[in-house]
Order: sequence, then structure tokens, then C-alpha cells
Amino acid sequence: MKANKTKYDVNPDLAKERLKCNFNIEEVTFIIDGGKEKTLQRKKIEDIALNNGDSLDEVPEECLSIKERYENAVRKSCIYSNKVRREMLEITGIENYASPVLRRTADAFFKDISPFMLHLGMFVPALMGQSTPDQLAEWLPKALDMQIIGAYAQTELGHGTFIRGLETTATYDPEKEEFVLHSPTLTSYKWWAGGLGTTANHCVVMAQLYTKGECHGTHLFIVQIRDLDTHMPLTGIKVGEIGPRMGFSSADNGFLGFNQFRIPRENMLMKHAKVEKDGTYVKSARHGKLTYGTMVFVRVTLVSEMSFNISKAATIAVRYSAVRRQSELRPNEPEPQILDYPTQQHKLFICIATAHAFQLTASWLWNTYEVVMADMKKGNVDALPELHALSSCLKAVSTSDALSHIEQCRFACGGHGYMLSSNLPFLYSFVAATRTYEGDYTVLLLQTARFLVKAWEQAEAGKGVTQTVSYLNRSANSKRVNWDNTHEGIIKSFQAIAAGKIAQCVKSIRDRIKSGMDYEDAWLMTTVQLVGAAEAHCRAVLLGTYWNEMKRITKTSSENVRKVLHQLAVLYLMYWALEKTGDLLKYASVSKKDLDELQRRYEELLAELRPNAVGLVDAFDLRDEILHSSLGSYDGRVYERLMEEAQKSPLNAEPVNPSFHKYIKPLMLGKL
Amino acid sequence: MKANKTKYDVNPDLAKERLKCNFNIEEVTFIIDGGKEKTLQRKKIEDIALNNGDSLDEVPEECLSIKERYENAVRKSCIYSNKVRREMLEITGIENYASPVLRRTADAFFKDISPFMLHLGMFVPALMGQSTPDQLAEWLPKALDMQIIGAYAQTELGHGTFIRGLETTATYDPEKEEFVLHSPTLTSYKWWAGGLGTTANHCVVMAQLYTKGECHGTHLFIVQIRDLDTHMPLTGIKVGEIGPRMGFSSADNGFLGFNQFRIPRENMLMKHAKVEKDGTYVKSARHGKLTYGTMVFVRVTLVSEMSFNISKAATIAVRYSAVRRQSELRPNEPEPQILDYPTQQHKLFICIATAHAFQLTASWLWNTYEVVMADMKKGNVDALPELHALSSCLKAVSTSDALSHIEQCRFACGGHGYMLSSNLPFLYSFVAATRTYEGDYTVLLLQTARFLVKAWEQAEAGKGVTQTVSYLNRSANSKRVNWDNTHEGIIKSFQAIAAGKIAQCVKSIRDRIKSGMDYEDAWLMTTVQLVGAAEAHCRAVLLGTYWNEMKRITKTSSENVRKVLHQLAVLYLMYWALEKTGDLLKYASVSKKDLDELQRRYEELLAELRPNAVGLVDAFDLRDEILHSSLGSYDGRVYERLMEEAQKSPLNAEPVNPSFHKYIKPLMLGKL
Repeated sequence: MKANKTKYDVNPDLAKERLKCNFNIEEVTFIIDGGKEKTLQRKKIEDIALNNGDSLDEVPEECLSIKERYENAVRKSCIYSNKVRREMLEITGIENYASPVLRRTADAFFKDISPFMLHLGMFVPALMGQSTPDQLAEWLPKALDMQIIGAYAQTELGHGTFIRGLETTATYDPEKEEFVLHSPTLTSYKWWAGGLGTTANHCVVMAQLYTKGECHGTHLFIVQIRDLDTHMPLTGIKVGEIGPRMGFSSADNGFLGFNQFRIPRENMLMKHAKVEKDGTYVKSARHGKLTYGTMVFVRVTLVSEMSFNISKAATIAVRYSAVRRQSELRPNEPEPQILDYPTQQHKLFICIATAHAFQLTASWLWNTYEVVMADMKKGNVDALPELHALSSCLKAVSTSDALSHIEQCRFACGGHGYMLSSNLPFLYSFVAATRTYEGDYTVLLLQTARFLVKAWEQAEAGKGVTQTVSYLNRSANSKRVNWDNTHEGIIKSFQAIAAGKIAQCVKSIRDRIKSGMDYEDAWLMTTVQLVGAAEAHCRAVLLGTYWNEMKRITKTSSENVRKVLHQLAVLYLMYWALEKTGDLLKYASVSKKDLDELQRRYEELLAELRPNAVGLVDAFDLRDEILHSSLGSYDGRVYERLMEEAQKSPLNAEPVNPSFHKYIKPLMLGKL
Repeated sequence: MKANKTKYDVNPDLAKERLKCNFNIEEVTFIIDGGKEKTLQRKKIEDIALNNGDSLDEVPEECLSIKERYENAVRKSCIYSNKVRREMLEITGIENYASPVLRRTADAFFKDISPFMLHLGMFVPALMGQSTPDQLAEWLPKALDMQIIGAYAQTELGHGTFIRGLETTATYDPEKEEFVLHSPTLTSYKWWAGGLGTTANHCVVMAQLYTKGECHGTHLFIVQIRDLDTHMPLTGIKVGEIGPRMGFSSADNGFLGFNQFRIPRENMLMKHAKVEKDGTYVKSARHGKLTYGTMVFVRVTLVSEMSFNISKAATIAVRYSAVRRQSELRPNEPEPQILDYPTQQHKLFICIATAHAFQLTASWLWNTYEVVMADMKKGNVDALPELHALSSCLKAVSTSDALSHIEQCRFACGGHGYMLSSNLPFLYSFVAATRTYEGDYTVLLLQTARFLVKAWEQAEAGKGVTQTVSYLNRSANSKRVNWDNTHEGIIKSFQAIAAGKIAQCVKSIRDRIKSGMDYEDAWLMTTVQLVGAAEAHCRAVLLGTYWNEMKRITKTSSENVRKVLHQLAVLYLMYWALEKTGDLLKYASVSKKDLDELQRRYEELLAELRPNAVGLVDAFDLRDEILHSSLGSYDGRVYERLMEEAQKSPLNAEPVNPSFHKYIKPLMLGKL
């Protein structure tokens, strides 16, 4: 496992840290990857893609203009796609698409992002999830072989979250057996789709379906938008780039407008609903619920993606903190490594734990997803609302937590964390977007809240509730949870918090109805609390799932691995208990003394984890090429790398910038 | 006050909002600016600088390469400096330098930042604060007239916060009456200084002073680093750009190394300590404390800067929220403005209130600063520790709050908030850096914590404590604060929280000493709690100061202005009470019922403020040129501007990007 070995000596402080580590690092890597075979598969693809030894960028991509950056990213995307062509073609469906290895390995090619990312991330999954077998046979092989390059266009300039508000129309013309796509207004222009602006020649488009004079709501259509030979936009298509964004600046995000643009009837993705030749609309009985599938799939993969991104940030910040020295604890002693400061440990160790928590939760969620999908194939959609509520809140909370933890890692690296060469700003921008796309934080939590309020009413009525909300039964029967200082006790208290908050929301809504509001207004006025209740539910799920999965998985681990992974999970429980003291005091029977004791234990736990910190981030096994970080490389040559990166700036290519003679000197001389 | 009027019609929703506003907007503008005269002065400078009508950028600066961006920013900086040359020369000292009008108006020229920013922001204040009268007479007029351009170099590649750890040396050579500046190691290179990389020809440098074989700690030296005529780095100087950063990408941040570089003895800034010709070191009795001056000054101005930046973000997000429509509250009703959602109001109204809170606190802090400085001139430095503790925590908390509120504004604008044309990403990057530079958040709060622990010990011993910590007397005498639901009651409870947390820290430290640790280790192990205690103290100060200043200032206001500003301040108190329920439950005698009642009142207050929301952000009176925002312009033409901005991207200049033929097509055909 010495793939990270470099030609340089390792920083002595970092080398010492590695000697301190008391557990088998490789064993933890296998656990995070989901088993030894997965680790080997990952390493195989990394070797294929990355063991070429060539340096991909002469000038760092962040120094280029927006146009140069894009063109450079296209170049690298094509190199990468070519390298992994064979692995791509092994993908047969959504079942073996779950492995994020391909997308993660691609990270080595881009500090920012590939213009092909959404081709694989959205276009292909949409085809897989919404095509008939015939459609799949036609489109999928071409897409995986990069014979066509696709985007996924749903959001419009004036419409995001609220899908029913989309304005783009697809009107069926039975005479020609075609759909006519049209953008009636400026706000109906498709907007944001990754890869759509200048790269894609195909696009899955969401539009309001009209046939026989009737609107049947939004459906998906596959649309060729550019000529495959010349790449010119087809007549009736207006397509372009939406302009620079925070992050994602090496790819193209696009806008797309249709002027009475015609596509064949067969280009409607008809797995769950179809339009017959004569224009008759036929939909599956469970059409609405079935289209959830792709959406839920994407959210599930995002939870795992968040784990990956936190693990990058944690690796960078922990290694840097082992190398960086600052201040003095006692007069005339040398400056300590900043990793020795409890305030630093407090910022960083929770990131390591969260990466574990999200990865184990993502695996568990993926298994749940597969079970529900299998049930659905048999016609049973009962479990879908719970899966939907679960994936909604986990997507919201995991992206939000990932963002604040990555930000915290950047803060923990002081000024150097702001250098793009640290990679922390790129990670922040990338993850910031995930908090909004595929369902905004607040909107998703309110969707979960709808489910929770219904579940509460069921529990109250003595009806059964599903597994993830079974704790509601306890509370609905007014059983108070007594605080006990065990780990299971903390999890139970978080369930009590969630139940207490949901109950309080239900009470607020009912009080407001009593005072004369209708249900909609009462709900609306309570939404600030409802968001909090859904977050609390999600915390209870995360804490419980991480704890149970960690215990299950480490049953056969070596002793020290079990011990350190146990410590991390305890840290996670304690951290969140201390973050939520208000809720604990309000909804669980915790005392002030309990909290002080918890605080003391937490501080001791930080010290206990300290010697294994570098080992724990080494276990994420992130190659330097994927980390892209002057602060986080395996060898810890922090200052040398910062200076080497600085030298690459085009501003250092000449000793005097031409603007001096053109502007500054005349200004100095009062002659401007 | 129709400076914002544009040639376009105002979006009808926004126009309606303005009709709803029930208070005199101009009156609130005067309050925020600090009086009518200040508003008029601001508008005068804005007119001089901005009423030229010419468009400054052909291509948006964010589309350019790093080198083009810098050169473009130099061009605009020179134009701007030339325009305000006369106003610059009216500055005579730090007393009339407080007005941030010049720096704020400059924002209209840059989405990002000017390479001259630190010339005015650090170089000039350092001269003002640390020069002898003779030195000031020599250097200041040249600096203000832009005959020389300066940077301020303190931080080194390996050393930030811990100034005593700086490695750059200045060794006095009595024979030649010169100082020899030297950088002994890679980590001793100066690093980060704004404007240093390619722009500045002078620099104030912090170095370890050696004379007669003895080290006297860090002192400041003014150093010419480039030839004024050719701009070539002088022999013995190694200077360059540190490479791209998060934000600040249109300016140059620099590194600087010295190889036995000589400067005249007179170039040491000798206000508080000097080296005589023969090498004798003489320092003022209060040298250590006096050098605080500039540092405290910069922190004071940062609090006001944070108010300004939050007001920008709030203006953008509130106006956009009045224009944007989303979802449906009731079947078949039109989509509501998103400003109608309490979750949105919850995100945004606190930003408006915080801008007020910080501005009023900054004015109060500035007055305190002037009093302390006047005392110091009379030889009385007793008030300095309190001012230092106060400015430390206010800098830390105001920058941190500003950052999270600006981020919240971005979240509140959905996807469009990520467009650089919204300006929200620029605001985030800019403010993110302020959280770290001039004293990292954690480090500053720990400095305040030192002061608080000492104050606690004094209070405990029955000795007097200074004004901002007088609440400690109450708690040290074990008087419990009873919760009362008044506004003063909330403030008292926050003081009780701070006192309770400080007491808990002292207890933790003492317990740990009892268990065998020495003081340093006991302190270190308690730092996570100490950071929390200092933050709590700062909250108590902010809440109390905002409340008292608001009441004082609105005494003579018209009724509706008093009412709306009162509502905002109440919102601020309630928001923070609800954020800190754990602390309230632990340290104040609040009940769960009180908290539920508070939540209900808070939700009602959001609804009460709703009709005045657009009026409140209009009162910030930020010209479109300064806002730089497609989402936040006065006219609310959101969608039109987004599309107009998109069209400016160089990626849209040609229908087919050349990389298609070069890379994508060969890949599609399997011929790469």
C-alpha cells in the first residue's frame, strides 16, 4: 500500500506520526471501500488511469481564462475517457453503476470538474431509469462508448425546485408522429445543465407533455441538439454557456431554448408512460412514484460522494496540521505541531468520523434502495415514501454537513487553506453546489417533514409506522426517555429530540388552525420548526446507522482497528450531543452535570485519538494525484510545494508586469 | 434619493414591495451612514468616482486569465486613484481615515479586489501608527499621492499568528548606519502580503531586530523593494506572486525574500522604539502596548466592513426573493414570491438586522477606541487590555457571522446564487479571508478568553472589573438571573450565559490542575470550552450594544422608523436566543414554555417585518455599480440580466468551440 510513495523524503514530523499509528491501516481502507475486492478494483482503475507519469497541465488550470480552462478540460476529459473506455463498456445497468470509482478517479485529471461529468452523472442514469428496453438498447451503448455526449436539462431560468412550474412544452403532433418542443418565454429557457453549453450533442429534456389538447405534466425526452459532424446547433435550438459560476469553472453549464423543435415520437422516454401513435396517453398505474427512482438513486450516490469529499479535506488538513508548527505552550519550548491543539483536533477529528459515518450510511442506504427497487418490480411500492423521505433528508444533511466540515478544514489550515493549490477552495465550491442541486436543503427537509407529520399522526392513532420512524411510537405514547450515559442512550435521546420536535410542530399547526388559519397557512407558519424537526430526525438516523453499521462491520476486525473505529463513532455521538445541548435539555432528561461530564469525556477522547490521526487519514488511501494539494501530499513537503506552485503562476514569468509602464508609472508621476 | 433609477422599468413585484414600505427610507439611510452629513459626503465621492457613465469592462473580469485579470485591475485601480486623488490628499491622519467611503466606493470598480487595496488598507495605517513625525512628513504625502505604492509584509511562509516566531532578521550595522535584512530559510519568506507580488515598490516589513548582538523582538521597517523607474526588483530582493487564491484573484499577493539587503537606519519606524546611530536600542516604556494601536484600528474598521458586506448580500437576496416565484401554497394559485416563505424570511431578515447590529457596534467601538487612544497619549494605558479583548472577539465573531450570513444569502438564492454575476460568491470569498487574516477566529477568541478568565478571578476576589465584563460581578456572587421575557431580560440572560461559561472554564482548569496537570496543560485541555466562553461574551456585548445604541439613536426618529428599527433589534435578540437554547436552558432560568413562546413570537415577527423588507434593504442605499449583481439590481430585471451576462462569456463568442474538432469528435469516432 505504498502507492503514495514519492521521490522525496517524507517530512520528519509526518514520518513520526506514521510510526505512532497503532492499527492496521490497510484493514481500515478495506472497510471504507466496502471490502478488499472493492479496494483492489479501485486500485486497478487508478493504475490504468493514472500510472502514465505524464504531467497533465503545464500551467495550473486556475491561471487560465475561462475559455482556455474549458478547452483544457475537454482535452483531459477525452484522454481520460479513452483510457477507461473498456471499463465504461462493462457497465450494464444501474446495478453495477453504483461504484463511484470511475468518477472519483477522474478527479485526478481536474482540480475543478470535467465537462463530461454530467454525461455519466445524470444523462446515463436518466436513460437507465426512464427508458424502455428498446430505447436502452439503442442509446446506452452509444452513450457509454462516447459516440454521443449527453446532458440532462430540467431546471429552467425561472423554475427550479417546483417541477410542476416548468414551462417548456412538448406537444404531440399525431400527423407527423413527432413532438414539438417549445420555449414560450425567457424564464422557460433550460438553465444550468452541466455539459450542455458547448459540449453535449444530446440532451434529456424535461417538458410539459401535451397531447390531444391536454397537459399530462412533465415527462422526459431525448433530444439531439447539435449536428454530430459539425457540432453546430440544429435549427430551432438556441444553446450556449450560462457564464462563470462559483466552482465548476472548467466545465460548461448551459442554457437551451427551443423554437418549435421537432423530435420523433420514439424519443419520449417511455418506461413509465407513453404516447401512442394516435396521441393517446397511457401511463403506468404508479407512474408518479416510479419516476422517483432516478432521483432517489442520485441522492443515494451523493451521500457517498460527500464522504469522499470530506475524506479529501480531512486528509489535507490533518497532514498539514502535523507539519505546521505554531505558538508556544511554555516559554522557550519549540513551537508545537498545531495538531496538538485541542481546538484543532475539535475541528478535524469530527471530519474523519463524518467521512466514516456517511460512507457506512451510504452503503446501508444503497442496500435499502436495492430492496425497495426489487419490491417495486414486484409491484409493491409501499416502502417508497419512507425511502423518499430518508433519501431527501440524508441528501440535505450530508451535503450541508460536508460543506461546513470542509469549510472548517479550510479554517483549520489558516491562510494557506485559501491557496487554490491547497485544493480546499475547490472542494468547498464543489460541495457547496451539491447542497443546492438535486433538491435544495430547505425544500428537501420540508418534504421529509411532510412524511414525519403523517407518521406522527399514524403513531398517535396507534397505527403501525415504518422502521426509521418507529421511535415515534414511544413518544406518541408519552414515554419519556431517561438519559443514560451509554452510547445507545445518546442515540435514544436523539430519537426523543426528533419525536419531541415533530410533536411540537404538530401542536403548532393545530394551535394555528384553532386560531382560525387554514391548514396550508398553519403549515407555512410552522415551516421554520418543521425544517428543524426533519434535521433532528436525520441526525437520529445518522447516529443510529453509523453506530450499528460500525459495530456490525468491525465484529471480525483486529483489536486495534475495532478500537479506533469505535472511538471515532463515539466521538461522532458526543460531538453531536454537545452541539445539540439545547435539544437534549429540552427533550431528553439530561442534566447539566451530564453535559459537563460529556464535555470532559469528549476532550479526553480527542487526546486519545490524536496519535492515530495521521493513520486514520492515510487509511482513506487517496493518491496525491486525486488530492491535488500542496498541503496534503503524502510526503508533507508543504512549504516546498507552496513555493513550487507559486512559481508556476504566469504572473511570475516576467520580472516586471507590462501594466507598470502602461498605468502605474504614469499614475506615480501624476501623468495619467 | 433616486440615484439607483435606471433606464428600465422596475420589475412589477419589486415596485409593489416599495409601495408597501411604511417608513421613511432616507431617514434610515442617514442612521446607517452615521448622520445626514456622512450620507452626503458618501454620495459626493460616489458621484465623483462613478458618474462617468463609461463601462469599465468589455469582458467580465471573471472570464479572464489570472494575468489578464491583474492587468485589468491595475488599469482600473489607476483610473480610480486618479479620480479621487484630491480626496485622498485631504487625509491627514488616522483620525479622519476612519471613513471607509473611499474603499467602499472603489468596490464599484472591481467585482474582486484592487491591487492597491492594501496600500490604503495596511501600508498607510502602518505608517500613520508607527512613524515618527519626521518619518510621517516624509512618507505619508508620497503614499497618499500614489508617488510610492506600498504593501505590508508580516506573515511568513511558515509563521502567521505567532509573531514571535517570525524569522526575518534586521541586523544593525553601526559602521554603515544601516540595517541588513535577511531571510535565513524558506519558511522565513514573507508570504501573503496584498499588492506585494507585482505592484508595490515599497513595503513595511516586520523583522526581528538585532543590534549589538542582541535580539529585541519584532519591529517594522520601511523598505524600497523595486526601482521606481524600471520597477525591477532591487538586488538582494526576491519578490513574486504566491499563486491563485480563493477570491482576491484580480490582485497580487506576494512573497518576499531578502539576501543581506541593506536599508538606512532611518527606515526603521521609530515612533515607539528606536536604534541610535551607535546601535543603542531605546524603547518607550509602553512599547509593547503601543504597537497594539494599528492592530486594534484595523480590527475596528473590519467590524464596519462586515456590516457593509452583509448589507450587500442582504440587498441582493431580498430583492431577488421579491422577484422570484416558486411552488404553490394552495392548489391552482399562482406561485408565491419566495419572500413570502417564513423559511426564507428566517434566512434573510437576520442578515438585515446583523448589518445594523454591526454598524452600530462598530461606531460605538470606534468611539471607545478614540477615548482609549486619547488616554494613551496622556500616558494612561489601563483601558487597553479591555479594548484589545473587545476588538479581538468582535473581529472574530463579526467576520464569522458575516461569512455564514452571506453564505445563507447565497443558499437563499438557490442555483442563481452560485452565478458569479450574482456577486454572492465574490462576497463569500472576500469575507472568508477576513475571518483568517488579521487574527484567526480561534486564536483571537482565546486572547479574549485570557482576559475573561483574569476578569473572573478579579470579580471572584471582590475586585472591580471593567465595564464590558461588569456582569461577572453578579455571577461571581452566585446571583442567578431569572429569565424574564423582556428584551433587557434576554440581554441579561446572555450575560449570565457568558458568566456561566467562563466560570465553567475556570472550574475545568482548576479541576485539571488538581488532578496533576500544570497550568499550561490545564488551559490547553480547556481551550475548546474557552473559545465558547469568549464567543458567549461577545454575543452578550453585541446584543447589549446593538439594543442600547438602537434605542439611543432612534429617540428622535419618526414613529415608523423607530418602530421598524426596534422590530429588527428585537428580531436579533430573539434569533440569537433561539440559536442558543442549550445555553439558556443551562445558564439562565428559562423554561421550555418560555422557549416555545419565544419561537411563536419570532415567527410572528418575521411576518410583521415582511412588508418592509425591500424598504429596509433599499435603505442601505447601495448603487447598482457597487452591488455588481444580476440578482440584486434596483430594477429587479433578474432574468434579463442573467441572460445578458451569459451572453458576455467568451465561450458564447463562437457557435462551435475548437476543442470539438480537436478532441471530442475524434473521441466519438474512436480515433483519439
